[in-house]
Amino acid sequence: MRICLIGVTGHIQYVFQGMAKDPVCRIVGVAPGSPGEKTGRLAGRPEVREARFYTDYRQMLDELQPEIAVVACYFSDHAKVTVEALMRGCHVFVEKPLALTFDDLALVKKAYTASNRHLAAMFGLRYTPWFLTAWESVQKGMIGRIRLLNAQKSYKLGRREEFYHRRASYGGTLPWVGSHAIDWIHWFSGERFCSVYASHSRCFNRDHGELEITALAHFTLTNEVFASVTLDYLRPEQAPTHDDDRLRLVGTEGIMEIRDGKVFLLNGEGGGPKELPLLPAGDIFSDFLRQVRGEGPSLVTAEDSFYITEAALAARRSADEGRVVLFPAE
Amino acid sequence: MRICLIGVTGHIQYVFQGMAKDPVCRIVGVAPGSPGEKTGRLAGRPEVREARFYTDYRQMLDELQPEIAVVACYFSDHAKVTVEALMRGCHVFVEKPLALTFDDLALVKKAYTASNRHLAAMFGLRYTPWFLTAWESVQKGMIGRIRLLNAQKSYKLGRREEFYHRRASYGGTLPWVGSHAIDWIHWFSGERFCSVYASHSRCFNRDHGELEITALAHFTLTNEVFASVTLDYLRPEQAPTHDDDRLRLVGTEGIMEIRDGKVFLLNGEGGGPKELPLLPAGDIFSDFLRQVRGEGPSLVTAEDSFYITEAALAARRSADEGRVVLFPAE
Repeated sequence: MRICLIGVTGHIQYVFQGMAKDPVCRIVGVAPGSPGEKTGRLAGRPEVREARFYTDYRQMLDELQPEIAVVACYFSDHAKVTVEALMRGCHVFVEKPLALTFDDLALVKKAYTASNRHLAAMFGLRYTPWFLTAWESVQKGMIGRIRLLNAQKSYKLGRREEFYHRRASYGGTLPWVGSHAIDWIHWFSGERFCSVYASHSRCFNRDHGELEITALAHFTLTNEVFASVTLDYLRPEQAPTHDDDRLRLVGTEGIMEIRDGKVFLLNGEGGGPKELPLLPAGDIFSDFLRQVRGEGPSLVTAEDSFYITEAALAARRSADEGRVVLFPAE
Repeated sequence: MRICLIGVTGHIQYVFQGMAKDPVCRIVGVAPGSPGEKTGRLAGRPEVREARFYTDYRQMLDELQPEIAVVACYFSDHAKVTVEALMRGCHVFVEKPLALTFDDLALVKKAYTASNRHLAAMFGLRYTPWFLTAWESVQKGMIGRIRLLNAQKSYKLGRREEFYHRRASYGGTLPWVGSHAIDWIHWFSGERFCSVYASHSRCFNRDHGELEITALAHFTLTNEVFASVTLDYLRPEQAPTHDDDRLRLVGTEGIMEIRDGKVFLLNGEGGGPKELPLLPAGDIFSDFLRQVRGEGPSLVTAEDSFYITEAALAARRSADEGRVVLFPAE
């Protein structure tokens, strides 16, 4: 299985992790997906020792004709590069969000449909032990039907690269940070989005230009299920971990929480909340490879990847325009 | 200090707790505030041993002329009874929400302004050790400026009295359960409400008529501060406590959380979150008595009591009508 990396900005470690378990995979080419990306930072990594380094990813794709293109450049270029790769017959493993505008998203969907290839966005958090454990437990009916979801992402800001400072290249905090939380909502509840109302603010963003340092979104879903998403970059720099991901799931038969990399279940058996034993971590790129090889669907489908992008862009539009946005949002 | 109790439905234990520390307070009369309230359930309580029991609270107020009226009847009668008590020159300590309609709220405000008397709603949760400790810590600047708030109320449903089953008498979950959380948002942030978008659902309410078993609200406040309120009656009956109150405060210099009756501060000093030592509990009725005696303002002001009622009714209107409601909301 021959792979080309386009861009070195996103979570390409997912690819390295998956390759470690899959000796027939090889990275054969590396190129920047956006002007200014420094692919040289990969030099010396064992995973790219057989790779040729290009300056033009289209030339690379044309010459090497890989089965898989990994797209992880500046966020504003995800859509364009994905379309180019699909048009050349590649399966695409792409950093989220897939697109920063509804127009770009439509172009990717169109190219995908015409391509008959596989695509998955990097919703890698699904594969952590805590999210997998919670999801399996919900599937088993441990909390009944989910009625309410509260999702949280809290990040350290640190000092972000310049491209984060501009809406045009970064896309906004609701798509970048929020799309994970939005994905959990859809994935866990199994419901479809009906509407979103969201807010975001650049105040106190420590000289990060247009980057929104706080955001809040309120989704309504089918069957009168509701979900909140709270996002911030205000986690203190000295905190023990980069992020503080949480998800609270309120069901008809119990309440489940993901917090601190643990899963807690409160369903009336045995009094207080109990911590669930964790499943082993999954591996998003291995799962994608499995799908490419025809061994079954990936946990993250192309449909999910498009739908979550749509929802994240709808939330951003709501916050920009100060109004409720209904789905389908375009 | 002579007190009359009107109604036995709300949190009248606040009054008993406050009286225990204040031997010059006496309950001189008890009457129902709503048809169907059984004041006989207080018979034998030492706090009412000197009280006369009436069937008509107006007659009671006219005959006994107490300094203080405690209003804690069915929620739909709070406003009317409060107006009657204010017009007779009583200070009023009243269960929240103060009113179930904007019209009723306006009547209470008008009567209050004309009365030159004191009024406070029963936002007793402010006086718990955890909320007092967090609030004092925020006042001292421990987390800088608050930018984002996430408030939670989760209750056991149990089997609620019939008057909870009808919107006309209960008023809705956003005003009844939500007004506490809405109070925290305003009290902690010091910001004013700009808009609210909310949702609520009666699905899976276990034969509780019109009672909304889940609700979610999204507030925007002055200075681009945002707040979520999540409410549910889905806490399992076997859980160790009736409620699961939480508040997360995201500030420019740190993050504070109230959870499980504890306060956690993450502000970069010493790595992970640290638990703060708790202040002793306060006492809302003692605080109200202090104000009545001219010894300084109560922590819960009349202005707060009106404003939080307005915000809760605005949230309910938003959920009923599926639209953003702007403040001032009438």
